[in-house]
Amino acid sequence: MSKPSIPKGTRDFGAEEMRRRNYIFETIRSVFALYGFEQIETPAMEQLTTLTGKYGVEGDRLLFKILNSGDYKAGIDAETFTEESPAALAARLCDRGLRYDLTVPFARYVVMHRNELTFPFKRYQMQPVWRADRPQKGRYREFYQCDADVIGTDSLMPEVDFVYMIDEVFRRLDLRTTLLLNNRKILAGIAEVIKAPDRLAQLTICMDKLDKTSVEAVLADLVESGFDPDSLEPVRKVLTLEGSNRDKVTTLRQLLADSEIGLKGLEELEYVLDHVDTSDLMTDLTFSPSLARGLDYYTGAILEVKSLDAPMGSISGGGRYDNLTGIFGLDGVSGVGISFGAERIYDIMLSLGKFETAMAPEERIIIVNFGEEELQKLLPIARQLRQAGLPTEVYPSADKMKKQLSYANSRGCRYVIIAGSQELSDGKVSIKDMTLGTQQECPLEEIVSRLRESLSVGH
Amino acid sequence: MSKPSIPKGTRDFGAEEMRRRNYIFETIRSVFALYGFEQIETPAMEQLTTLTGKYGVEGDRLLFKILNSGDYKAGIDAETFTEESPAALAARLCDRGLRYDLTVPFARYVVMHRNELTFPFKRYQMQPVWRADRPQKGRYREFYQCDADVIGTDSLMPEVDFVYMIDEVFRRLDLRTTLLLNNRKILAGIAEVIKAPDRLAQLTICMDKLDKTSVEAVLADLVESGFDPDSLEPVRKVLTLEGSNRDKVTTLRQLLADSEIGLKGLEELEYVLDHVDTSDLMTDLTFSPSLARGLDYYTGAILEVKSLDAPMGSISGGGRYDNLTGIFGLDGVSGVGISFGAERIYDIMLSLGKFETAMAPEERIIIVNFGEEELQKLLPIARQLRQAGLPTEVYPSADKMKKQLSYANSRGCRYVIIAGSQELSDGKVSIKDMTLGTQQECPLEEIVSRLRESLSVGH
Repeated sequence: MSKPSIPKGTRDFGAEEMRRRNYIFETIRSVFALYGFEQIETPAMEQLTTLTGKYGVEGDRLLFKILNSGDYKAGIDAETFTEESPAALAARLCDRGLRYDLTVPFARYVVMHRNELTFPFKRYQMQPVWRADRPQKGRYREFYQCDADVIGTDSLMPEVDFVYMIDEVFRRLDLRTTLLLNNRKILAGIAEVIKAPDRLAQLTICMDKLDKTSVEAVLADLVESGFDPDSLEPVRKVLTLEGSNRDKVTTLRQLLADSEIGLKGLEELEYVLDHVDTSDLMTDLTFSPSLARGLDYYTGAILEVKSLDAPMGSISGGGRYDNLTGIFGLDGVSGVGISFGAERIYDIMLSLGKFETAMAPEERIIIVNFGEEELQKLLPIARQLRQAGLPTEVYPSADKMKKQLSYANSRGCRYVIIAGSQELSDGKVSIKDMTLGTQQECPLEEIVSRLRESLSVGH
Repeated sequence: MSKPSIPKGTRDFGAEEMRRRNYIFETIRSVFALYGFEQIETPAMEQLTTLTGKYGVEGDRLLFKILNSGDYKAGIDAETFTEESPAALAARLCDRGLRYDLTVPFARYVVMHRNELTFPFKRYQMQPVWRADRPQKGRYREFYQCDADVIGTDSLMPEVDFVYMIDEVFRRLDLRTTLLLNNRKILAGIAEVIKAPDRLAQLTICMDKLDKTSVEAVLADLVESGFDPDSLEPVRKVLTLEGSNRDKVTTLRQLLADSEIGLKGLEELEYVLDHVDTSDLMTDLTFSPSLARGLDYYTGAILEVKSLDAPMGSISGGGRYDNLTGIFGLDGVSGVGISFGAERIYDIMLSLGKFETAMAPEERIIIVNFGEEELQKLLPIARQLRQAGLPTEVYPSADKMKKQLSYANSRGCRYVIIAGSQELSDGKVSIKDMTLGTQQECPLEEIVSRLRESLSVGH
């Protein structure tokens, strides 16, 4: 029999990793709920027709496809099998695929359920997604996404809420961040001002590289991409903008004076600045006019969060999209959403030792097993402790004391109840505190109250 | 564009279903934790070699298989494609499949991680599984399993814990149940006593039907299956056993006097009865010697829970298996586990209206939006409410009052804060209680304390 293994790029999560992952998920979830978002879940499998063509050519290639059940090859002749490309043949062999993100299933959900939903619809979703990417450090084939979206309102209040929500999540996780803010219409305005409105995509791809390179390199890159060097002065001004968020807005208002869409973008951006009280924020809210963030479907605000503690790239982000449900035939529904990169957040918290300080230690109780006679007296105690809400286990067999204590230790049990027949007939037990290394006697009838007190004091 | 849909047998879960499902999952999870179980998660995909051959021929057929990435058909010639059976060809096209249950991945996990784990290892796992079954009422292709197992101890304490855990879960869910208990060794003893030790599987398949048919029908079925009619008197006695659990044990002790394994089974069963105080239980603990529960891998205790409120079959169950990890080359590890059927529990709670009584209502707050001027004064109030932990949203645009109230209603918001410019300049707001239909004035500086009080009183 060969040694069992798991598929490349997937992971098992043990007890400690689960506690830490749940801590991050629970933090994000509680902030989503605090702002009135409601949870939904969609199936792991979607129809391939729902997924295909939504993520570009590369995305289609990375979809996990599920072989049809039953006689999946009926109706496919040998020639078709031989001649067709793997992709074309896969469309015959597979009707379903694993979800690639939470955004497309959400759009599909909204369209399918539009008659039951109340708009604006505020949902969050925290589920795994699957991508047949080449696995590498920090990149997995199965990973969680944590998304919140508001759909069905043109109001910019959701953008304001999202700034506060991002701030609150990272405040609770005790991570220092910069929150970069931009608006896709400002980028469109810049393209208009340099007389290249049809080359917005290329312009933003180049500008977005500013955080990894220099202004001169970005400008050179633009020229190489075919932009007229004489037209690029406004771009240089944007790339070298300094000062406060308000200063940047003032400068850009002059620069974009002739672009209606550019001014509209500035107005939307100012709305967010006007409604966020930065003195309330722990994050550093920065207007960054070069931020583009995958131009594809964003049409308004763009948000991106960078960790100040680790050079990890983006750990959260989002933006407004004006026609997401259009891909499923429902036009004119505007939405805005954010997503938290739980896997990266986990890695940062681990490297900074944040879990130890942020999470309350597990304070389980274990009762040492000396044998049948003691057990009969201790089982009712275990039941009382559990009735009081205290996680309690009884070691299952009368193994050597050393083995039982070593088990208690490796399980992270804080309190060990030790009682032989003599102590029990004297009506008492010993309680060992594994953290402090102390041990004290306790009458049987006081065990629950004393441990309840110790454990609640500990929190 | 065609109307989007989801694959047959899968489901979307909306906000209300999610709250109810989470309530069930959270109840089960908290009881698992109370008894010292720790959560793990395994990937949705496993190697097909891990899954194949573990669930019988029918199970293999029901596995969802994932088409290999890239040029998956390289090396498969046209003849192979045409000649091979769908199953044999699938083994060439697919290296991975979706997990079919949580038990086999758990066994694989234990074997892979055995050097990091402390035994006895107590884990729980709550994740979806996938089966290409024909969908029908109550049977889905994607559904959650909630399993707890203890592995690496021969002690019968876990069986005792599981009785209490099952009782506690259904007590918290307020569902009336019968907990049927048996031991696979007792069944083996009966097979020995009727001189058919090699026909245990067939014997138990027939006996297990007792709850759906009569004693005479079971006996006739056994005769038809080739059992000697003259040997079946002990089986008749077992099937017609009445009285208390202890009475049944006494009768069986005589019946199984010549079967070593049968007596061992009775001894194990009595251990559980001796260590469970039935006066503590809400469930009705019943020794049921005909209970077999899919004989395949159980070797000791067998547990099954039936709802007394709805004729739904089993809603929880489990048992001891002595060699689960043997399939992956690690012998001699005994385990025992239980599983909760969350989907069936959901259906029962829904049909009994239990969610309404069991779950605290959601008490969200919404602030009516009258426009920009009021917004600037109300946003700080929203922030204060959230800082106090009260879920609060601001309606995103200055729509008509009626529309905003209807939104509040459909979202289940308990309190609506209403304040026009006049009220705000007088330093107050109105708070409308959507449940009671009342409305009262409240000074700005008292909103937080008053709502915090109302909401905590409500719980």
